[in-house]
Amino acid sequence: MGGERDLIIELSKIFGGVPGQVICGIGDDTAVFGPEENFNLLWTIDSLIEGVHFDLTYTSLRLLGRKALAVNLSDIAAMGGEPQYALLALGWPPARDLQGALELARGMQEMAQENNTAIIGGDTVGSSQGLTLSLTVLGRVKPDELLRRDKARSGDLIYVTGSLGQAAAGLEILRQGLELSEGAKLPLVQSFLDPRPEVAAGRVLAQHHLATSLIDLSDGVASDLYQICLRSQVGAVVEAEHVPIIPAVRKVAALTGKDPLDLALKGGEDYLLLFTSSPDKKYEMQRCFAQANLPEPWCIGSIVSGKGVRLRLPTTEVEISGTGFDHFPAIRP
Amino acid sequence: MGGERDLIIELSKIFGGVPGQVICGIGDDTAVFGPEENFNLLWTIDSLIEGVHFDLTYTSLRLLGRKALAVNLSDIAAMGGEPQYALLALGWPPARDLQGALELARGMQEMAQENNTAIIGGDTVGSSQGLTLSLTVLGRVKPDELLRRDKARSGDLIYVTGSLGQAAAGLEILRQGLELSEGAKLPLVQSFLDPRPEVAAGRVLAQHHLATSLIDLSDGVASDLYQICLRSQVGAVVEAEHVPIIPAVRKVAALTGKDPLDLALKGGEDYLLLFTSSPDKKYEMQRCFAQANLPEPWCIGSIVSGKGVRLRLPTTEVEISGTGFDHFPAIRP
Repeated sequence: MGGERDLIIELSKIFGGVPGQVICGIGDDTAVFGPEENFNLLWTIDSLIEGVHFDLTYTSLRLLGRKALAVNLSDIAAMGGEPQYALLALGWPPARDLQGALELARGMQEMAQENNTAIIGGDTVGSSQGLTLSLTVLGRVKPDELLRRDKARSGDLIYVTGSLGQAAAGLEILRQGLELSEGAKLPLVQSFLDPRPEVAAGRVLAQHHLATSLIDLSDGVASDLYQICLRSQVGAVVEAEHVPIIPAVRKVAALTGKDPLDLALKGGEDYLLLFTSSPDKKYEMQRCFAQANLPEPWCIGSIVSGKGVRLRLPTTEVEISGTGFDHFPAIRP
Repeated sequence: MGGERDLIIELSKIFGGVPGQVICGIGDDTAVFGPEENFNLLWTIDSLIEGVHFDLTYTSLRLLGRKALAVNLSDIAAMGGEPQYALLALGWPPARDLQGALELARGMQEMAQENNTAIIGGDTVGSSQGLTLSLTVLGRVKPDELLRRDKARSGDLIYVTGSLGQAAAGLEILRQGLELSEGAKLPLVQSFLDPRPEVAAGRVLAQHHLATSLIDLSDGVASDLYQICLRSQVGAVVEAEHVPIIPAVRKVAALTGKDPLDLALKGGEDYLLLFTSSPDKKYEMQRCFAQANLPEPWCIGSIVSGKGVRLRLPTTEVEISGTGFDHFPAIRP
């Protein structure tokens, strides 16, 4: 037999045993498992393409494996769910050493274990077009804990689960080789290369019914908050002075001639959670996050009637709706 | 807003409404649905990469959309299951007209409807590396109807659900521009460009408990039957004189200097079913397939004790284990 079967055997060793509800894991035509009663299933797919979503001059295959799974887990977190299973479709350039594919798989398995997720199957293909990775993840959520994008209400407060723009600043450091102290550089580069999905924060919001709407920050607040506004038929005001930005991000902004608010609100890839919550839940939320050993979310603004996302600056207010990262030019009629 | 949101809106129009058990379809972070009691879930992912798995000089975007879904549905058929839902991750080169993405989606939706499957979400990304498509499909099967690869027994007969090598012959016609009559050419080219997943045949086998093991023919009998042998710890003998090959495939073999048996057994991409069945099920199987208006499967050999796949020719016997299409060279230690 050739390399494909060997590769699948090696991958199945890395991805380890199958959990109890899995009837067929790696090695049959599909993965097979028994779904649980009283849960809804959450299901997502994401692709990463070399030269578009990652550049192996900046990252390692292990970190790429971690991040590829992390962005999918972030989608499950964004519904208030718990991830359970993943499948990997790996397009590997045949000329490259397959040891690299195993290194990637090891990184993926680390991220899976950190989030109680089992990688139970997938597909391997040769790719003459660089490395491509597609992952699909299934998770679960109780029906009354599901958090969507479409239930934000006027008067709700808007929160984020961490400081913004770190991943975008980390990318600038890598792209431009910026000179910063290691202490300033490391957390930014790590935010970009090795994001941690906010599964625990999503579960706190869901279990305690603390949020009216929830999304993960993949494209940036300007774009992702606008998605909530569109789906909930509301508007949003973000208070510039309340946007959490660490000094290292301000430093990168200064070095690159950018506005730190642009990095924070339009940078993308932070993979934090953005949610809306009724003001009367404020103290319960603080208590629940503290009990779960999670940092207190930052309030960055409020939901209003109307449309669109506005940024309130000291002397003016600007529309920032949907100005985050977009993959495509406008569709032609 | 830019093109990505417009594209998602257009795709959600093409993919249509969501079925009853789907709680969130296109437009939130993940798809959400309620699983059914008393069924196991079947879950598969497959990727197609431009320049590796397809060439748009040979096929149209509509047919590509059909085939991309068909190969995933074939994996569900290979477990005896019914497909239910699909997610699409589309990597589209930003410079290409997005109308093409919609044409691809329309083809995919045709195939989905022909197989009672709902496309309920996914992901769209820009790709500088050509068009990439990943699909993940969920299906269901009753636990006692699940058909795996690991239950073939010595003495079982080996069947295929149609004549072999048509897709490989179709590919040769396209690659080499072979001169054949339209009547000979069309079914071969269609087998390659527009395969029909054998969901109905898989269901007949599963519901009537007719098969001991089942796989779909993606890499060819030599490779796929070998998978059954490996997993079931048995050997197999294929009778050359019983391998179903239509005259047009023999014609392509003659024109290209190939052995028709090589096209039939090692060509791949036929997406028919290969299964093993106890000899005492033979007449029940004929009756069940006839009742379902499906062509009678062809018996091509039998399972024996031992290892590997052997091809019995009039005067000799050769080992053909695992000599189908392989994506990778051997893994390096």
